[in-house]
Amino acid sequence: MKISFKNDYSEGCHPKILEALMATNLEQQDGYGLDEYSLKAKQIIVDKLQSPASKVFFVSGGTQANLVAISSFLKPYQSVISAETGHIFDNETGAIEATGHKVNPARSVNGKLTKETVQEVLDAHQIIPHQLMPKVVYISNATEIGTVYNASELKELYEYCQSKHLYLYMDGARLGQAIMSASNDLKFDDLAKYTDAFYLGATKNGGLIGEAIVINNPALHEGFDFVLKQKGALLSKGRLLGLQFLTLFEGDLFFELAKVANDHARMISKAFKENGCKFWAETQSNQIFPILDNDKIEVLAKDFDFYVWRKLDNDQSAIRIITSWATKEENLEKFVVKVNELK
Amino acid sequence: MKISFKNDYSEGCHPKILEALMATNLEQQDGYGLDEYSLKAKQIIVDKLQSPASKVFFVSGGTQANLVAISSFLKPYQSVISAETGHIFDNETGAIEATGHKVNPARSVNGKLTKETVQEVLDAHQIIPHQLMPKVVYISNATEIGTVYNASELKELYEYCQSKHLYLYMDGARLGQAIMSASNDLKFDDLAKYTDAFYLGATKNGGLIGEAIVINNPALHEGFDFVLKQKGALLSKGRLLGLQFLTLFEGDLFFELAKVANDHARMISKAFKENGCKFWAETQSNQIFPILDNDKIEVLAKDFDFYVWRKLDNDQSAIRIITSWATKEENLEKFVVKVNELK
Amino acid sequence: MKISFKNDYSEGCHPKILEALMATNLEQQDGYGLDEYSLKAKQIIVDKLQSPASKVFFVSGGTQANLVAISSFLKPYQSVISAETGHIFDNETGAIEATGHKVNPARSVNGKLTKETVQEVLDAHQIIPHQLMPKVVYISNATEIGTVYNASELKELYEYCQSKHLYLYMDGARLGQAIMSASNDLKFDDLAKYTDAFYLGATKNGGLIGEAIVINNPALHEGFDFVLKQKGALLSKGRLLGLQFLTLFEGDLFFELAKVANDHARMISKAFKENGCKFWAETQSNQIFPILDNDKIEVLAKDFDFYVWRKLDNDQSAIRIITSWATKEENLEKFVVKVNELK
Amino acid sequence: MKISFKNDYSEGCHPKILEALMATNLEQQDGYGLDEYSLKAKQIIVDKLQSPASKVFFVSGGTQANLVAISSFLKPYQSVISAETGHIFDNETGAIEATGHKVNPARSVNGKLTKETVQEVLDAHQIIPHQLMPKVVYISNATEIGTVYNASELKELYEYCQSKHLYLYMDGARLGQAIMSASNDLKFDDLAKYTDAFYLGATKNGGLIGEAIVINNPALHEGFDFVLKQKGALLSKGRLLGLQFLTLFEGDLFFELAKVANDHARMISKAFKENGCKFWAETQSNQIFPILDNDKIEVLAKDFDFYVWRKLDNDQSAIRIITSWATKEENLEKFVVKVNELK
Repeated sequence: MKISFKNDYSEGCHPKILEALMATNLEQQDGYGLDEYSLKAKQIIVDKLQSPASKVFFVSGGTQANLVAISSFLKPYQSVISAETGHIFDNETGAIEATGHKVNPARSVNGKLTKETVQEVLDAHQIIPHQLMPKVVYISNATEIGTVYNASELKELYEYCQSKHLYLYMDGARLGQAIMSASNDLKFDDLAKYTDAFYLGATKNGGLIGEAIVINNPALHEGFDFVLKQKGALLSKGRLLGLQFLTLFEGDLFFELAKVANDHARMISKAFKENGCKFWAETQSNQIFPILDNDKIEVLAKDFDFYVWRKLDNDQSAIRIITSWATKEENLEKFVVKVNELK
Repeated sequence: MKISFKNDYSEGCHPKILEALMATNLEQQDGYGLDEYSLKAKQIIVDKLQSPASKVFFVSGGTQANLVAISSFLKPYQSVISAETGHIFDNETGAIEATGHKVNPARSVNGKLTKETVQEVLDAHQIIPHQLMPKVVYISNATEIGTVYNASELKELYEYCQSKHLYLYMDGARLGQAIMSASNDLKFDDLAKYTDAFYLGATKNGGLIGEAIVINNPALHEGFDFVLKQKGALLSKGRLLGLQFLTLFEGDLFFELAKVANDHARMISKAFKENGCKFWAETQSNQIFPILDNDKIEVLAKDFDFYVWRKLDNDQSAIRIITSWATKEENLEKFVVKVNELK
Repeated sequence: MKISFKNDYSEGCHPKILEALMATNLEQQDGYGLDEYSLKAKQIIVDKLQSPASKVFFVSGGTQANLVAISSFLKPYQSVISAETGHIFDNETGAIEATGHKVNPARSVNGKLTKETVQEVLDAHQIIPHQLMPKVVYISNATEIGTVYNASELKELYEYCQSKHLYLYMDGARLGQAIMSASNDLKFDDLAKYTDAFYLGATKNGGLIGEAIVINNPALHEGFDFVLKQKGALLSKGRLLGLQFLTLFEGDLFFELAKVANDHARMISKAFKENGCKFWAETQSNQIFPILDNDKIEVLAKDFDFYVWRKLDNDQSAIRIITSWATKEENLEKFVVKVNELK
Repeated sequence: MKISFKNDYSEGCHPKILEALMATNLEQQDGYGLDEYSLKAKQIIVDKLQSPASKVFFVSGGTQANLVAISSFLKPYQSVISAETGHIFDNETGAIEATGHKVNPARSVNGKLTKETVQEVLDAHQIIPHQLMPKVVYISNATEIGTVYNASELKELYEYCQSKHLYLYMDGARLGQAIMSASNDLKFDDLAKYTDAFYLGATKNGGLIGEAIVINNPALHEGFDFVLKQKGALLSKGRLLGLQFLTLFEGDLFFELAKVANDHARMISKAFKENGCKFWAETQSNQIFPILDNDKIEVLAKDFDFYVWRKLDNDQSAIRIITSWATKEENLEKFVVKVNELK
């Protein structure tokens, strides 16, 4: 059995979550998110955001979070702008379009949107009513290529969106890792200040399943619980989600685990760098994209699982390595040894 | 804190499931349902159904199972027939309509559809192309009022559907309880013989979350995995679902738990009956609908949680009591004592 | 060739419309409803309604008008209430559901909704968020069985809707005939006072094609032109619609033609009545539903085309006879002669 | 009043159509496309295509034709490939996405798709089931920039689609003009051989409104009439459409009018060319895209209406000039005189 660096959802969850599930298992709790653990976890998240007007909704996965949120925020004639590399544009099987809405691709810079690239889309949508009205700007943080938005980038984009009457929505499948990026100055409560809504991923950062949708803009609260139920996202045993987020957020576990994932990534990135390797995208969170000769990729692939991400030419490709809180130290070391042998 | 008989999802899951999660927690497994536990659980279900051509897909909830399945089976101009008491008609926030399809209400007999009541809908849909073409017949087993389909009822309905080129789809949120109903002769492998597709509920019968969609008719297999992903139903950590179904189905745990739930219900039903109580619907599975004077309902409500289901007149209402595998014996006894005191 | 009383769209249009088309045919006009005829016709309709805040949009058919309007007015989790006999519930091939919204059937009284029957639907939708939020009340005037809303009925229903935060929308495929019903006191400008939106049908009252959607409530104006285009309802040669409505509304032609249709219907209704015939629904506009012995239906069917509407028992059925402005006097006379011979 | 070259729908229809409407106006005809004129027109089209298995459906506009056809052809998890310049990608207000389907943009070559550019999209959709399955290839002929597919280009693309199990669908808003292009060898009956379905536009070539959807592939026939009604595309007075297509196709009027439009365009194109003008796209049908200095555009704009299509740099832009069968000779001459004065 190979050691896998394919993704950050290969293992189960942090042991404390299983302990919490066991400790409370036979208690009777109300269903549909009205259990005491969900209520408490939501309050803690709102408190840590210092945003009492925000509302929190737990769902089971990222595609679900995106489709529920975006379809709830848009009117029939409105669309969502995404980086051409954005997860909703190309990796969620048309989930947004299946709710009736177009995803407008925008040029991305290091996987990120800027006010300039969003403005390009607006400029190209001036023929009324023959073109859709873009209304939501979708960004991922960390992005699909592991880069992160710093505080000033996010603030600038949000202020631009405000000025254009656009909603800014952040896909936070790896938001913990983005926040804890060594190169980042974005703070957790900035998310309430500089987005209209975002989701916070637990699946890839310590949870078994679960994402927390946080809606900061009160104009987007109305009817959200109906849409959750309508799209099949309202779990009857909401306690499963509540207990996970409670475990991750009542202390700092969520942030600590993300930091571990990033530290692991930096260790691997450093090994490649010291061996003269170039990168397809900068290592800012827990994804690493080294560029390797194909024969060296084959050597690595004997013992390790990972994706070959982009064929760059006939000789070289970028591979994707992902680390997590659960990556075992001994496996990291084995990998680094093998990287050193590639020279 | 009152003792709750409001539903069968107030507690967590059977302890063996938590044990299995703990035992395998830090193993690396492939994502999106390709983990070894999901694969094994699916094979066991297919084996127990004696239906090698059937395919199994795990999802996280019942509304999700229904909307994924029905929207996958229908063409844009086709509709689904449901009992007017059916869960998809009135309790899933328009989930089916949100996928673009009408739910045609049919008259129900004890919560069940018959070939006669389905035929009434077909007879009323003869104006082509001004009316939709009904194509799927949706039934719940156990039904929303706790009644069950026996083998001959199901067989007759299925053969009728075959003759009319209709697909028969069964919502099995409480399918274990239906199968294990004392009054029932339906066997597990009849589900493969007499339905085109069905789902098998774990959430209300020992699981933490999870429903298994089983598609028997190969004509309905194509593209199903795409639709799962598109509707946000494909969990990255599919192991969570796989391990639960494996635990429930590798032995007979699933059936044993359902039997316990039904036994609990019969105990309560007997108490009401011995006290001269009438019932709004016959107790065939784990739901009990005794009819009580309003003042007696108030007495019961002091110590117990349950729903007042239907106001019958100014003096009387039917209440709904639900039991499960997790109902504690001591709570059952307390409840029976209180029922005896109502006289 | 039989004489047809099957519907009020068997003939073309009033000759003045063809004259207007010919007179303006080779003029250059702007497209998409910005031609001078559309603009002028819209202004005239708004003026006659004495409702300067209303906006008018022309579309080509009734199902299109309904689906554009209702899908534009509803949020994803909202539904529309219709009489169980309503056209959108059963005769438009699931057009509303195809836009993602459920149609909630309500009990009807003489084909009409009342505040009591709407309230019944609201009462049955109290389980939040497991049931949809009804938001639009759809009525047809004249109804599908030819009855009409008088001023006080409409006012009462509208005020009730206001009090419940519901929008009242009227399908006016035969609105001219309803307004001109001999038994009616509803005035044209009442439509602006007592509905949030309605559509006004030309196809069945003098036009070649065309319905005018009038939106009185400014809260429903936003984005409507986008939705028109999105649903394929915005004609590039909008002049075709504009010229028709201009011809029908610059004088009183629209109302005169409706009166003729109703007069024709009364003439036929009278003939049946004088021959001792009973009616399945009262003749208030241009639809007549006499109840006849099946052998007499066969006699009539030798020379005339009409629908057998409802089988009442083994011996009797209700037939539907429809008249229009275009029904020829000689055909009316032939029909009356034949009715008199039925005795 | 300026002379307009903005589009080919500024005028009404060919006078023969109005004559046909007048001559048949008060005849009684069956509704919903069952009138004798629609039936006859459909038969003539099928005969001219030499394709007895093809079925023809009349609708009122191009966006409507596209959304009805594409949503009928696709399963929920399938998408349609369009040139990035394709009308459905950017000029129909998300009409396709509103039916639940993504439009995948493909690189275009002179506004056209080739097997290479379609293959690029397929290559980028290999992650199953996380990406959609492209199933329909949408092309426009003439394209949105006036270029046309010749017989070998269309044949090659069709055969490629066959080999990849893709349906080829052609938007023929200006199909007459494409067929009659002086540079083209495509014959009318090639459309039945080399497409699975297409639509044939009358609105921009002699009709008042109306497009004829022709479905050659019998696998795509099923249920199409239901979808027409569901999307609001089935006119009750179908005679309006039938009579137009009968007038255009019982002789060669449709083709003659298209030839006139193209001849007019060549006359204008020649004038620009002789004045040393370059073109943004080659003039192959009735659209001309000359590149002009901005001050010269201003001069032209004093007397003529047209669109400035693309700003090329600070000094120059491409304008769009469209001619039609209805363009008056005197206006053409005035325009050519003005072009000659630009030097």
